[in-house]
Amino acid sequence: MGINNQNITIKKSTTTKINEVDFSNLSFGENFTDHMFECDYIDGEWTNAQIRPYGPISLDPSAKVFHYGQAIFEGMKAYKSVDGAVWLFRPEDNLIRLNKSAVRLAIPEFPKDLFFDGMELLLNIDKEWIQTTEGSSMYIRPFIIATEPGVSASPAKRYKFMFILSPAQSYYSGEVKVLFADKYSRSASGGVGFAKCAGNYAGQFYPTKLANDAGYQQVVWTDSSTHENLEEAGTMNVFFRVGDTLITAPTSDRILDGITRKSVIAIAEKAGYKVEIRDVSVYEIEEAAKNGTLLEMFGAGTAAVINPIVSFNFKGNDYDLPKLENSYASIIKKKITDIQTGKAEDPFGWKYAVRSI
Amino acid sequence: MGINNQNITIKKSTTTKINEVDFSNLSFGENFTDHMFECDYIDGEWTNAQIRPYGPISLDPSAKVFHYGQAIFEGMKAYKSVDGAVWLFRPEDNLIRLNKSAVRLAIPEFPKDLFFDGMELLLNIDKEWIQTTEGSSMYIRPFIIATEPGVSASPAKRYKFMFILSPAQSYYSGEVKVLFADKYSRSASGGVGFAKCAGNYAGQFYPTKLANDAGYQQVVWTDSSTHENLEEAGTMNVFFRVGDTLITAPTSDRILDGITRKSVIAIAEKAGYKVEIRDVSVYEIEEAAKNGTLLEMFGAGTAAVINPIVSFNFKGNDYDLPKLENSYASIIKKKITDIQTGKAEDPFGWKYAVRSI
Repeated sequence: MGINNQNITIKKSTTTKINEVDFSNLSFGENFTDHMFECDYIDGEWTNAQIRPYGPISLDPSAKVFHYGQAIFEGMKAYKSVDGAVWLFRPEDNLIRLNKSAVRLAIPEFPKDLFFDGMELLLNIDKEWIQTTEGSSMYIRPFIIATEPGVSASPAKRYKFMFILSPAQSYYSGEVKVLFADKYSRSASGGVGFAKCAGNYAGQFYPTKLANDAGYQQVVWTDSSTHENLEEAGTMNVFFRVGDTLITAPTSDRILDGITRKSVIAIAEKAGYKVEIRDVSVYEIEEAAKNGTLLEMFGAGTAAVINPIVSFNFKGNDYDLPKLENSYASIIKKKITDIQTGKAEDPFGWKYAVRSI
Repeated sequence: MGINNQNITIKKSTTTKINEVDFSNLSFGENFTDHMFECDYIDGEWTNAQIRPYGPISLDPSAKVFHYGQAIFEGMKAYKSVDGAVWLFRPEDNLIRLNKSAVRLAIPEFPKDLFFDGMELLLNIDKEWIQTTEGSSMYIRPFIIATEPGVSASPAKRYKFMFILSPAQSYYSGEVKVLFADKYSRSASGGVGFAKCAGNYAGQFYPTKLANDAGYQQVVWTDSSTHENLEEAGTMNVFFRVGDTLITAPTSDRILDGITRKSVIAIAEKAGYKVEIRDVSVYEIEEAAKNGTLLEMFGAGTAAVINPIVSFNFKGNDYDLPKLENSYASIIKKKITDIQTGKAEDPFGWKYAVRSI
């Protein structure tokens, strides 16, 4: 195997679940392929790299991930053409971000060669699972968890890195109405908001549930000090179109440096749109909604790529956004997904060809 | 069994590890008893309550605890007298706080009867592990984790509750020097700082490691907006003695409502000390250190009970605290531990007698 230079042990499954999966009707993140990659951090090094049949992992009940939350992840997608070529979208950016998250969570960084060899071997082994029909992709979930036993609050000495794969379809979340947060918060200055760590998600579930109960699908988080600046939506970065200008908050230690966000900015700039990366005040957006200059809001993230927002609520008042033909959201989404799926040229060099074994 | 009214299944271990444990030389949280309690939340109810031999648990690699951090816990202690009586310290407060954490993390609350029956049955079964020598206790770790598989960011529908038990000695952490945080933060207003959730701990490890490398054992966290108010130390609440007044920050959505903290306040007030529960400015404490009125600082938490602090660093300047005879810390610690261990009367009604089977 030309791409396995890392002594990854391979144990293949003797059966496949592929015929049990209805690829035309997939729920996001619920089906997993026949194999998984795992690698353990023991005595100061990543070791025991292996691909084996997908299945449960066994941990001591005192494993630190259960008690002290050292857990980070990434989300990526692979695509396959009808001639069998497989590629990824900006995968090195995911590895760089994973390792930034690792540093902040006191988790050892994961080596680049092992990341790529492990992921590409696994994608080759489960290649049949990557569909070529319109909108299909393979969602890739790399993650690291603290496995060392012991209920004392200190960084673990043992970890497990894994890749698991989940086939995905294009994601339509329905009409998205959002609530601007004015009480609850996602992250603090000096905290872990920029890291893709497990705890950032659990903290959002309860306030999101309150928003859901009130008829809003997502919360747009504001800064925790003043609740005056719009930051991100927890699983998406957020863009605002005021007049012909596209505005999004700068990344900070409170905001995830989204890869789709960066791609939206690059594509918008290349398309000649005016893009401003600066603090976005809730009052500015409310005023723009009132005077009719707020034309669009949308979220940007790996799962949905671009998720248009149809209305927002701020301090009890609802504001609807206009329904536009040829919205920036639809134009930018098409440009990104055409690159991702190979329908258009990739002038940015974002596609990474997965090596064949 | 008179205390098992909850249909808890019991499967006893055929062997014991008790003879492998050096009870005179225990590291905190590293040894566990022969049995554990577990209970699963499935289809909207807590079910399958059982006590079985301590051992690994098996989870799907996509289990939500690994990815989205729904994980909460408590820390409690049991004590045993030479005549075999076993008791707990303010256990209902732990259950109340566990369920407050549960609500904030969108985890189902755990029922009181099952909590007490499960814990007391387990303590009876592993009673031999509770030592009666000076300073001995049984550390009890209840925790809940999200077990449902699936890599979509939403609250799980399945959870596991567990009790695990770890024998403990009195805890001496050495001389504790602390750093007042002026860059990193533990929690945000509107966030999860008051909850005993896993993610709150992982976020502290990296800044604590930086502090350790600089020669400080712990960080005293300040508010994330201004870094001007002293809040808590992550595994301890913090008290300041200025002149004859004991001062501690009020609890808030950023600060854990510590049971040892509450007990310190009650004992100090009963002893006739002046206690102020109010915002504590870093500048006030720095000024008190400079003019000699800052007499003590100490942490309060379940593991160490009271942890005296010998010096603090604020923005690069170190301030030593005086070494006092008959410090408030030593007097209050003796009063609490005498109640906990049964050496003194319990005028507060804090002790809870564990029922025998």
